[in-house]
Amino acid sequence: MLETEELWEENVRRVTPYTPGEQPQQKNIIKLNTNENPYPPAPGVREAMQEMDIDLLRRYPEPYGDPLRKALAEETGVEPEELFLGVGSDEVLALAFLTFFHGEKPVLFPDITYSFYDVWAELYRIPYRQISLNEDFQISKEDYIFPSEGKDGIGGIVLANPNAPTGVELNPETLEEIIAAHPEVVVIVDEAYVDFGATSVQPLLKKYNQLLIVRTFSKSRSMAGLRLGYAIGNKKLIKYLYDVKFSFNSYTINQPTIILGQAVLRDRPYFEKTVRQIEETREKSASRLESLGFKVFKSKTNFLFVTHPKLDIPDLFEWLKKRGIFVRHFNKPERIRPFLRISIGTEEEMEALFTNIKEYIIGKEK
Amino acid sequence: MLETEELWEENVRRVTPYTPGEQPQQKNIIKLNTNENPYPPAPGVREAMQEMDIDLLRRYPEPYGDPLRKALAEETGVEPEELFLGVGSDEVLALAFLTFFHGEKPVLFPDITYSFYDVWAELYRIPYRQISLNEDFQISKEDYIFPSEGKDGIGGIVLANPNAPTGVELNPETLEEIIAAHPEVVVIVDEAYVDFGATSVQPLLKKYNQLLIVRTFSKSRSMAGLRLGYAIGNKKLIKYLYDVKFSFNSYTINQPTIILGQAVLRDRPYFEKTVRQIEETREKSASRLESLGFKVFKSKTNFLFVTHPKLDIPDLFEWLKKRGIFVRHFNKPERIRPFLRISIGTEEEMEALFTNIKEYIIGKEK
Repeated sequence: MLETEELWEENVRRVTPYTPGEQPQQKNIIKLNTNENPYPPAPGVREAMQEMDIDLLRRYPEPYGDPLRKALAEETGVEPEELFLGVGSDEVLALAFLTFFHGEKPVLFPDITYSFYDVWAELYRIPYRQISLNEDFQISKEDYIFPSEGKDGIGGIVLANPNAPTGVELNPETLEEIIAAHPEVVVIVDEAYVDFGATSVQPLLKKYNQLLIVRTFSKSRSMAGLRLGYAIGNKKLIKYLYDVKFSFNSYTINQPTIILGQAVLRDRPYFEKTVRQIEETREKSASRLESLGFKVFKSKTNFLFVTHPKLDIPDLFEWLKKRGIFVRHFNKPERIRPFLRISIGTEEEMEALFTNIKEYIIGKEK
Repeated sequence: MLETEELWEENVRRVTPYTPGEQPQQKNIIKLNTNENPYPPAPGVREAMQEMDIDLLRRYPEPYGDPLRKALAEETGVEPEELFLGVGSDEVLALAFLTFFHGEKPVLFPDITYSFYDVWAELYRIPYRQISLNEDFQISKEDYIFPSEGKDGIGGIVLANPNAPTGVELNPETLEEIIAAHPEVVVIVDEAYVDFGATSVQPLLKKYNQLLIVRTFSKSRSMAGLRLGYAIGNKKLIKYLYDVKFSFNSYTINQPTIILGQAVLRDRPYFEKTVRQIEETREKSASRLESLGFKVFKSKTNFLFVTHPKLDIPDLFEWLKKRGIFVRHFNKPERIRPFLRISIGTEEEMEALFTNIKEYIIGKEK
């Protein structure tokens, strides 16, 4: 039955979905493959969960996710109407693509970046052009300021900053030059990893109405399992985004998310402490990997993007996996096949990683 | 600033969003406007919430919502691969529209039905034609079996059964005739309200590969605040739907939903008891409304669709609202302006409703 094409299949939207990192279910593994936070959520989350009024569940949640949106407005220093909440930053980005890239001109983003961008463009049949990063895996600003399509020939720009999976930050001045050059299209800056030491473009919101910043609770807030992301932008931009969201699903942010999201925001010292710890472990890990001969990109995220001139990286990837250590390897684009993306775990997890990598290297040298 | 059109707005997808029922935040109101369940979730939900391992939240959830999907497969008597989970049945339906109606031919649904169908069609620029219900607000099967576009001229069919906001059930034989007539397109049967005494088309899944059934935990399961809906269909259909879902958002079902959804399923007696109670209250309420001169459609849902030959319905609606009793009134289509949709509450809530309606009638008679 699965082999023959049936008539109704003619109308089906065919897509090649995004491939998320593996979520192995076995215990006792070291999971450094999906940039999750190695530290548990803020302690107040447990309390909030235990005290949650279960009767709330029989009612639809507030459509804008209030009072969580209000708490987040306070945290980020903007007005609630400048915030959009979604089911992870993936939903925010997907709906932003659908809302703001409704034209015939190509949207620009790098060839090496979050690999969901082209998937969303394909899903919604949005024209796009992927621009090669330079040899150092950096963005060349001229490619965006003076695109080959001409100044009025593009439909939008999407930049992850810091970029993934490279971890590299683009400096804010360059980013501003790109944004300033394109008042005619929405520019999305995906700041999923910004909390780990990078500089946000948030101060630019006052100057550029077409700037949309997207962030997530999944990394720095230890809440990947809650699915909560958000966008910051001027009220008109956010209103358009909500119009589309309310044409898609009235209630996306469920009651537990509203309650637990607020609990997370209440504990800023815990947030800062865990983020600083991850940065510290990252710097230490980078040095150790370098001492083992790896080339490590300067990271402002909770992961490291590394390669090694002498090692067979796909082989090392499989070897680590067999030993219960999951890191991330990308098969495309071709240019990043010799690289690994390693999420920053606890000190102990990183220690186990190094021990294993050293064993691998010794084994190869024999 | 909000008045002048900026350049980037040219690329914005403009839509008229769905208008959900009001979610008034004040206490001490009687809320009979969004078909929520008047009874709290199964008692096991509280326990599951209190025992939830908070550390789960830092990890991404299982992309298919397992083990909830497996538990639901057991409950519904299908295989997990025949199930699709979404953030409410709204997300399931939205993604089903996007997946299965990717053609140039119009999708058919009634003029009076769930008012989100045309919103999704507009959002995704899907051609559609709304077919008038007959004078008794019933579907005329010929309109669907022999559509004016011709047998091969349609792109899909969507039918809510029981229908909303009428509450009326189409008999399963007629529904099968419609499904059988159209092997060439996906037929979606939206069974949001099926648990309140209607007959599911689930047995037809074995015969018709193009049938997709959509259901929700929001009504009969008292879990509107959790946002959980699902689709049942043959594995190929479900696979296509997941391909689109994984092109939209890798992880939609958050950890609390996975945990609490399972807790709900564990208590079948509670589910049956509350559903039977609502049916009983519905029948009693229908009789009482009839005795007050209302015309009440035969409902197989948790709401009643009513009108009154002598009363100004929009006026009654506002009058009840001022007294803290929220029911639902639709301004469009024009034909249903003289109607109210009243969700079934507890016995006490319905008692308060009748007392107030009687007062209103007496006031008008003076």
